[in-house]
Amino acid sequence: MKLASLKHGRDGRLVVVSRDLNWFTDAFLIAPTLQAALDDWDRTAPLLRVLAESLEHEAVPRGRFHERDAAAPLPRAYQWADGSAYVNHVALVRQARGAEVPDSFWTDPLMYQGGSDGFLGARDPIPLMDEAWGCDLEAEIVVVTGDVPRGISATEALDHIRLVGLVNDVSLRNLIPAELAKGFGFVQSKPASALSPVFVTPDELGDRWNGGRLSGALTVSLNNAPFGQADAGTDMTFDFGTLIAHLAKTRSLVAGTIIGSGTVSNRDADGGPGQPVSEGGLGYSCIAEVRTVETLSGGAAVTPFLKHGDTVRIEMLDERHHSIFGAIEQVVEAG
Amino acid sequence: MKLASLKHGRDGRLVVVSRDLNWFTDAFLIAPTLQAALDDWDRTAPLLRVLAESLEHEAVPRGRFHERDAAAPLPRAYQWADGSAYVNHVALVRQARGAEVPDSFWTDPLMYQGGSDGFLGARDPIPLMDEAWGCDLEAEIVVVTGDVPRGISATEALDHIRLVGLVNDVSLRNLIPAELAKGFGFVQSKPASALSPVFVTPDELGDRWNGGRLSGALTVSLNNAPFGQADAGTDMTFDFGTLIAHLAKTRSLVAGTIIGSGTVSNRDADGGPGQPVSEGGLGYSCIAEVRTVETLSGGAAVTPFLKHGDTVRIEMLDERHHSIFGAIEQVVEAG
Repeated sequence: MKLASLKHGRDGRLVVVSRDLNWFTDAFLIAPTLQAALDDWDRTAPLLRVLAESLEHEAVPRGRFHERDAAAPLPRAYQWADGSAYVNHVALVRQARGAEVPDSFWTDPLMYQGGSDGFLGARDPIPLMDEAWGCDLEAEIVVVTGDVPRGISATEALDHIRLVGLVNDVSLRNLIPAELAKGFGFVQSKPASALSPVFVTPDELGDRWNGGRLSGALTVSLNNAPFGQADAGTDMTFDFGTLIAHLAKTRSLVAGTIIGSGTVSNRDADGGPGQPVSEGGLGYSCIAEVRTVETLSGGAAVTPFLKHGDTVRIEMLDERHHSIFGAIEQVVEAG
Repeated sequence: MKLASLKHGRDGRLVVVSRDLNWFTDAFLIAPTLQAALDDWDRTAPLLRVLAESLEHEAVPRGRFHERDAAAPLPRAYQWADGSAYVNHVALVRQARGAEVPDSFWTDPLMYQGGSDGFLGARDPIPLMDEAWGCDLEAEIVVVTGDVPRGISATEALDHIRLVGLVNDVSLRNLIPAELAKGFGFVQSKPASALSPVFVTPDELGDRWNGGRLSGALTVSLNNAPFGQADAGTDMTFDFGTLIAHLAKTRSLVAGTIIGSGTVSNRDADGGPGQPVSEGGLGYSCIAEVRTVETLSGGAAVTPFLKHGDTVRIEMLDERHHSIFGAIEQVVEAG
């Protein structure tokens, strides 16, 4: 099933959305918010599934679903931890700034605790006070967990994944080096991220969801030009079960925890960095990566970071070219 | 006024507590949880204040307040960001492991985004799977904010502080170096922290609360022996307004954000590291610091990290030796 939160108060109002994303029906009587549904998932999930089936059969009152009306599915969450599962991305970015990639990066997930107190809706603008901060998008896959016990194994962790979605993990590249040097993670260089309009249950994804990885091209556009189409199921060094187990090694996780994959990134067929979409490649899921490739190949980065007025679009289409999660589409605004 | 959350469901049940911590009265009709009260503070705070006054005058139904019945005031919060405002502590710990203390540490706050999805109650045990992880306490002051707009100044930020309390920021010292080396902050080395039974409004603190700093000895006991009595108002390089402004530089903060001071630490009168309480000094607010002092003075750390069965107690007493926030008192347990 597919779930969304229509803009309403601090936490939105939970609705079930039809598979084609055209219709919604109110789920308020089952749970007023997505967090409330996740808090009591064993009770609410079966009821929501019945409601979703009724919506498909037009057996319940329904309204047109507009992605612009959607808040983030969890407008404020109790936890957001973002991995770097596509180590190819990390290796490229580090290579370009002359930093080492320790061998451990291929076996021990890199992960940071992010700010979870305010997620942007999929159509909300990206507020950017200062273009000199080097604003970048990062197109990623996320999962939402139920309650996860401390010390869980990577395999067991897969059973605790309740929902799958997309995130634009907005990053301020020029603030990152100073924060990395402190070792304490990202505080100022990671402002609010945006979530896809709709989150879906793993069963809804069929064969795309396998072993804690989601397969399919993550299409990224920059100012309406194709920018990336890397496959999220390829080159994902750590699956979501491994990422969850990493976070839960020393503490339990509460229902509604959002875990990110890190920027999706594929190696080129020849093992090198990706080529631009315009040159037949799979492109990039963040600007830092194309700048890295430009630096490695031509000595200098050419593509600028985001400026006021720029538009970012992130989406995944199914085999019939229908949007699975709806589109994140954001304009960068002064503010 | 003083507020607490009695253990009940995922978020506790909001109560107002008497100044002497002996009595409580239910605040459910004003707000069912502390988060709900913070979400609507302009409406709820005046009502809660009236209730608190009525409780002092025994004009409302009341029950005995037992600190053991208290959950963390915010059992799950949308944000927990911990500063290192007592740069003396950071400098000492770095010195002992031969790491540099950059000059910027004295002007640019060190802060990490912590896991906020599960805070322990003040009497909850500290679960520790492996003693080899090097479990440590960290006694700190915390504040809870209202909604904070992006880009706020340090001075303006002070007006957004709603509550003040204590935290035991449990740390796994032997997992920290590897995570620091990654630069992405703490994921596994900071398990769940414990909050004091009671949080209080700044006005309740009188002259102790001044310029975004709380004055008073933070008394720490280890296995019932005095371990620390550093004054939280001394040597705090960055006040809470500065810490909030640091976190809010590029994004707004949601009501209920918890900001920590970092481990309270005082320099000795002669400017050197603190002496043990048993030798007439102010002692320490974490084991890492005494181990640091031992290493610097004798070549090796002597005091062990916490083991199963050890007890930690953290409290601040007022001038009449009454507990202000109640005591955090935790036993380390296998698990």
